[in-house]
Amino acid sequence: MTKIRVLVLILVFQFINNTSKANNGYELWMGYEKITNKNLFVKYQTLFSVIYLPQNSQDETIAILKKELQLASKKMIEQSPRFVNQVSEAQIIFEINKAQNKINEEGYDIQTSINAQQKTQIKIQAKTNIGLLYGCFELLRLVQLQIDPSQIHTTSSPALSLRILNHWDNINRSVERGYAGISIFNWHTLPDYKDKRYTDYARANASIGINGTVVTNVNANALFLTHDYLVKVKALADIFRPYGIKVYLTARFSAPIEIGKLKTADPLNEEVKNWWKQKANEIYSLIPDFGGFLVKANSEGQPGPQNYNRSHAEGANMMAEAVAPHKGIVIWRAFVYSNEQPEDRAKQAYSEFKPLDGKFNKNVLVQIKNGPIDFQPREPFHPLFGALPNTPVMMEFQITQEYLGQATHLVYQGPMFKEILESNVDASKKVIDVVENKINGLSGISGVANIGNDINWCGHPFAQANWYAFGRLAWNPRLSASQIANEWIQQTWTQDKNVLATIQDIMMSSYENMVNYMTPLGLHHIMGNGHHYGPMPWGNTLSRADWNPVYYHRSDSLGIGFNRVATGSNAISQYEAWVQNKWSDSSTCNEKYLLWFHHVSWNHRMKNGNSLWNELCYKYNEGVKGVAQMNSQWKSVATQINAEGYDQVKQLLDIQLKDAEWWRDACLLYFQTFSKQPFPLHYPKAKFDLPYYQSLNFPYAPGNGK
Amino acid sequence: MTKIRVLVLILVFQFINNTSKANNGYELWMGYEKITNKNLFVKYQTLFSVIYLPQNSQDETIAILKKELQLASKKMIEQSPRFVNQVSEAQIIFEINKAQNKINEEGYDIQTSINAQQKTQIKIQAKTNIGLLYGCFELLRLVQLQIDPSQIHTTSSPALSLRILNHWDNINRSVERGYAGISIFNWHTLPDYKDKRYTDYARANASIGINGTVVTNVNANALFLTHDYLVKVKALADIFRPYGIKVYLTARFSAPIEIGKLKTADPLNEEVKNWWKQKANEIYSLIPDFGGFLVKANSEGQPGPQNYNRSHAEGANMMAEAVAPHKGIVIWRAFVYSNEQPEDRAKQAYSEFKPLDGKFNKNVLVQIKNGPIDFQPREPFHPLFGALPNTPVMMEFQITQEYLGQATHLVYQGPMFKEILESNVDASKKVIDVVENKINGLSGISGVANIGNDINWCGHPFAQANWYAFGRLAWNPRLSASQIANEWIQQTWTQDKNVLATIQDIMMSSYENMVNYMTPLGLHHIMGNGHHYGPMPWGNTLSRADWNPVYYHRSDSLGIGFNRVATGSNAISQYEAWVQNKWSDSSTCNEKYLLWFHHVSWNHRMKNGNSLWNELCYKYNEGVKGVAQMNSQWKSVATQINAEGYDQVKQLLDIQLKDAEWWRDACLLYFQTFSKQPFPLHYPKAKFDLPYYQSLNFPYAPGNGK
Repeated sequence: MTKIRVLVLILVFQFINNTSKANNGYELWMGYEKITNKNLFVKYQTLFSVIYLPQNSQDETIAILKKELQLASKKMIEQSPRFVNQVSEAQIIFEINKAQNKINEEGYDIQTSINAQQKTQIKIQAKTNIGLLYGCFELLRLVQLQIDPSQIHTTSSPALSLRILNHWDNINRSVERGYAGISIFNWHTLPDYKDKRYTDYARANASIGINGTVVTNVNANALFLTHDYLVKVKALADIFRPYGIKVYLTARFSAPIEIGKLKTADPLNEEVKNWWKQKANEIYSLIPDFGGFLVKANSEGQPGPQNYNRSHAEGANMMAEAVAPHKGIVIWRAFVYSNEQPEDRAKQAYSEFKPLDGKFNKNVLVQIKNGPIDFQPREPFHPLFGALPNTPVMMEFQITQEYLGQATHLVYQGPMFKEILESNVDASKKVIDVVENKINGLSGISGVANIGNDINWCGHPFAQANWYAFGRLAWNPRLSASQIANEWIQQTWTQDKNVLATIQDIMMSSYENMVNYMTPLGLHHIMGNGHHYGPMPWGNTLSRADWNPVYYHRSDSLGIGFNRVATGSNAISQYEAWVQNKWSDSSTCNEKYLLWFHHVSWNHRMKNGNSLWNELCYKYNEGVKGVAQMNSQWKSVATQINAEGYDQVKQLLDIQLKDAEWWRDACLLYFQTFSKQPFPLHYPKAKFDLPYYQSLNFPYAPGNGK
Repeated sequence: MTKIRVLVLILVFQFINNTSKANNGYELWMGYEKITNKNLFVKYQTLFSVIYLPQNSQDETIAILKKELQLASKKMIEQSPRFVNQVSEAQIIFEINKAQNKINEEGYDIQTSINAQQKTQIKIQAKTNIGLLYGCFELLRLVQLQIDPSQIHTTSSPALSLRILNHWDNINRSVERGYAGISIFNWHTLPDYKDKRYTDYARANASIGINGTVVTNVNANALFLTHDYLVKVKALADIFRPYGIKVYLTARFSAPIEIGKLKTADPLNEEVKNWWKQKANEIYSLIPDFGGFLVKANSEGQPGPQNYNRSHAEGANMMAEAVAPHKGIVIWRAFVYSNEQPEDRAKQAYSEFKPLDGKFNKNVLVQIKNGPIDFQPREPFHPLFGALPNTPVMMEFQITQEYLGQATHLVYQGPMFKEILESNVDASKKVIDVVENKINGLSGISGVANIGNDINWCGHPFAQANWYAFGRLAWNPRLSASQIANEWIQQTWTQDKNVLATIQDIMMSSYENMVNYMTPLGLHHIMGNGHHYGPMPWGNTLSRADWNPVYYHRSDSLGIGFNRVATGSNAISQYEAWVQNKWSDSSTCNEKYLLWFHHVSWNHRMKNGNSLWNELCYKYNEGVKGVAQMNSQWKSVATQINAEGYDQVKQLLDIQLKDAEWWRDACLLYFQTFSKQPFPLHYPKAKFDLPYYQSLNFPYAPGNGK
C-alpha cells in the first residue's frame, strides 16, 4: 500500500506544482506555497492537525483567523485542520490571556512546548482577538520561513500605536502619484457593492500589522464628508473592522463653506466649531470607531487656518475638539511651504512648526515627511524629528515611487526607510527613538500607499515588497531591511536558498543604484515637471521657483549644490549641533549629502581623491552598472521561479536599464555645460545629445491625477 | 489495482474541484473546466491523445494553436497531447487545404470520421493558419459544450469580413463610457513593457473570431499619430498579428494642423493630402498590415471636412487615398447631428449620408449605429440600413452599457443585437441581409468595447457575455441569442443542465426587463445628464436641446411621445414604405416603438385595453418584477456555482433591483405630473417623493472620461 500512497501523493503534488506556476501577483505575500522541505512538511502536518480557538464563534475576527488557518494549511501542507473545544486535545492553541504582561493590547506571545506525551504544542496568547489574529499571521509567516516547530518562540507587540496607510485616492478613482491603475475604492458602486478586493486589502494589511487607513487624498474633496459618501465610507469601515483596521478621512479645511453653507471656515468661529462637532457626531454615529482626520492645510493651494490668520495649532485643535469626545484623533501634516516665502523650502516646515510645540491638543499628531523636501531618492532626515519634544509626531514615508522610478523601476525601499530611522538626531538618539517615543500615549507612522486596481495591486511585482516592508517596520522599526526582504522573498518567489540569496541581493542593492543613476551625492528634485518621471535638471519654467529643478541643484560655472550652511540658507542650523558638526564642513560632510548642504566647486576633492565632476560621472555610471548587474542576476534565476513573474520583471528591468542610462546621459550632458570638463576616459558615450534629451516630453505620464 | 486508481483519481479530482471554486473572472470563457461527464471525459482523452499540426513550427499562429490545445487538454481532460509528424498516427489532424471550396480564407471545416481501425479521427481543414486557429477554438468550444466526438461536423466561414472592437480609450487611460476600470492599454509603459494582458486580450478575441481592434477613442487625440505613439501601437500590432487581429486607429481630422504644423486640414488641399499620405507611409512602414482609420467627423465637436465646406465623402476619400496603396480602409462614422440644425436628431444622419451614396472611394465603409439616436435601451433600426445600396456599411453596436445600467446591471445584449439584425428593412430584406451584403468586397460590424483593467475585464461578470455574444454574432449573425447564451454559460458557470437553464432564463429575460424599468413603450434618452446613469426624465438644463430628456419624451398635459410621423418630424419617412405601414398609425404601431414615433394621449387605448398611462405603470412595474424574478432565480443556484462569482452577481442584482425601483418610481412620479392620473390599484407606492429623486446628484458617476 505504501508504494501506492506515494503514487497518489506524487500525482497530487505534480498537479499542484503545475498550477502554482500561474502567478499573477494578486495573492501578494499570502500565496502560501506548498512547503518543499519534506521533513518540515510532515512536522507541520502534525502540528496543524488539531487546533483550539477561543469559543466565541460569532466573533468576526476569530472567524477570519479560522479561515486563514484553513486556507494556509490546505495550500502549504495540503490538509484541513480539525478545530476542537478542548485545549488538551489541540496542538495549536489560541488563547486570550488578559494577564499576559509581556505584551500590549495588540501584541502576541507564541511559545512551543513539548507536553507529557512528547507532543509539540504551540500556544498563541494575546489580550485581544486582534492580537490573536496578528499572532496567527506571525505563525503562518514562520511556517513559510520554514522554521522548525520546536524553534518557534516569539513575543511581540507593535512599537507604534498608529500604523497607517495614506491613500492619495481621488473621488473619481484617479490616484495622485499612483502607478498601479486606479483606486481600489470604487465610490460609485459603494456602499452596495462590496468588492472582494476590500476584504483582501484588509487581510493583507492585517497580516503585516497595519491598523489604519486614510482612504482619501490629502488634497481633499469636501464631498467625502457629505452623508452620501459617509455611508460609503461606513461600508468600508465595516469590512475593515474585524481586521483591526480603523478608517480615517482627510478633512478639507474649507468644508464648512463648501458643503456646510457657512460663510467662513475660521477655526475660532463658533459656527465653524459647531459644524465640525456636528459633522464628527454624524460620522461617529455611522462609524463608532472612526479613526479621525488627516489634514493638509495651507500647503500647495490647500485651504487652512492661515487663511484666517490662525495658526496650524488653532486649526488642528478646533478639529481635535470635535473628535475628542469620540476618542478620535487629528493628524496634521507638517508638509508646508510657500512660494511667497523667500526662505529655503527645506526650512519652512521647521520654521512653522517648531514654535508650535506643546500648543496642540492631546489628540493631535504632527505628521512629518522623512526628509525636509519631498520624498526624494535620498534626503537627510527631517529636522523636525527631535525638535518637537512636547508633540506626538508621526513619520510619513512614501511607499508609492513618485520620485523613485514609479512602477517601472525595481527599488526596494527597506534600506531607505532604515537609513532615515537609524539616523542620529543627536549623539544619543535616533529618529527611530523619536518616532517610538509615545507622547500623550500616541506614536505612529504613515505610508503613502502604492496600491491600485492592477491585478497585482502595486504595478511592479517588487513594489509589493515596499508595502510589506512598510508594514513590518511599522510594527517593529528595529527589523533590518535585509531580514524583511528575506521574509518577503520566501513568501513570494522561492524557498530555494541560492535563488533567495540572488533576489535578496538584487533588492538590497537596488536603492543605492537608483540614488546613483538619479541623484547621487545629495542632488535632489531634478525630475521632470509635474509627473516627476525621468531627468529634467534643466527645468526652469514652472510658476513657482521651488518647483523647478534649477532651484535645487544651483549649477553654475563654479560648481554645483545648494548651500544650506551658514554662508547660505543655513537650513543646517535646524539640526542639533552634533548633526551640524557632521555635515557643515564640505570637506568632511558625509558625501551622500554633500550637494544637499553645500555648493562646491567642480574640482572639489572627494575623499577618494576624485574631483567632484569625475565623482559625479563615476556615481551616475555606477548606478547604471548596478542596474545591469541586477538584470544579469535576474536572468540567472530565470528557470527557477514562476515564468509569468520572471517575464514581467525581466521586461521592467530592461526598461530600468534604459532609463538609468537616460538619467546618466541627460544629467551629465547638462551638468557638463557648467563644468566644461570632459567625461572620464573609457566611460560610455551618451547615446544622444543634450537637445534630444531636452526635447523629450511626456504629456500623459501617469500619477498626476489627471 | 482498479480501486486504488479510482482513489487516485478521486483525490486528484477533489483538489481540482476545490481550486476551481476560486473564480475571479480573468479567464473569461476560456476557463476550460474539467469535463464532468465521465463517458465523454474518456472519449476526449482518447481523441486528444495524439495530434498532428502543420509542420511550420516557426509560425507563431501554429505555436499559439498548439499551446491552446495543451492548456485546454490539461484542464478539461487532465492529459497532455502528443504531437506527431505523421497524419496517419494522429487522432486530431490540423491541415491547410487551399482547395477546400466550402470555406473562405478565414473559415474552417471540421469533420469526424471513423478510420479502418475503428478509430475516431477529427480533421480540421482551413486555407490559412488563422483559419486553423479559429477551427481549434471551435473544436475546444464543442468539447466544452460536451458534444460527442462522433457528432462533430461543422463547416464555417465568417459572414462579415470586418469584425472589430472599438475602444473608446483615451491617451491617459480613462475610458469614455467605460465601467470596468481604466484602459488595458498602458501607453506609458508601451512599447517596452508588454503586459500579459495584451496577449490574453488577443487570445480571447481570436477565440470568438474578432479580427480587428480600434485601440483609440473616436473622440480622437492627434498625438496617437505621432511617431512616439505609433511605435507603441506597433508593439500592440506585433502581439495581435498571430491571433489574426489587425490594429486600427482613430484619426483626428485636424491632425495635420495639430501635429503636422499645417495651417489647414482642408481635405482638398494638396499639402493636407500629402501629409496624410506621408503619415500613412510612416504607419505602414511600422505596421505593414495596419487596418486603417476610424473617423468621427463633424459630430459632437469633433473637427471634420465640413469645417472647410467639404462633404463627408470628400473627407473620407482623401484619407482613403492615403491608405489605399497599402490596402488600408477608412471607416467613416454616420453618427452626426448638429444642435444648430433644427431637424429632429433622429433624422440627421440619414439626411446627411443618403445623398452621398456611391460617392465614397472603394475602400471606405460607413459605420452606422444600430439605431438613429444613440444606443438607447431600445431603438428601431437605423433608417440608413438599406438606404445606401452603393456603399459598404458597417453595423456599430455598443457593448459597453452606457445607457443600459453600466456595470451594475445584468443585461444580456444578445436579444437586443438580434432584434436589430432581424428587423425587416422592407418586405423581403432584413438588416442582417444589408450588413452581410459585401460591397466592394467589404462588410463588417463594430462593437464599442466594454473592456477595462478590472480583474474580470468587464466589471459585471455577465458583461463578459456581451463581448462574447458580439464576437459570435460578428462571425455568424444568424446564431440565436439563446444559443450563444447557452454556449457562454457552459464555458463559464456550469455544465449542469438545470443550473444552465436557470441562468439562461435570467439572461434571456434581462434585456426586456431593463427596457421595461428604464424606457418602455418607445421612450428614450431620459437618463441622467452626461453620465447617463439613472433616471432624469425632467432633465432640461443642458446647452443643447437634443441632449435634454424633455426633447425626447415631450410629455405634456395631453400626452407623451415624439411625433415622428407626417404630422410631426416625419422621421418615419426615412424608412421604406413597408416599414412605414407598420409603424405610422398609432393604433396599429408595434407598441414597443409607440412613443418613439407618436405623441399619444394619456388615455390612448393600448391593444390589451389598458390606457396608455396604466400601461406605462404596468410596464415599469413589470420591469421591476422581472428583476426580482432574476434575483430569486439567481438565489436558487447559489450552492451550485462558484461562490465568488455567485456573491458578486448577487450583490449586483440587489443593486439592480433597487435601481429598477428607482427608475420606476422617479419616472412615473414625474410623468404623473402631466398625466394627472392615479397609479393603478395595488401597485407599489414610491418610496420617496419626486423632489427627492430630482435632488439626487452623481457628480462622479463613471464613464464620462473625466
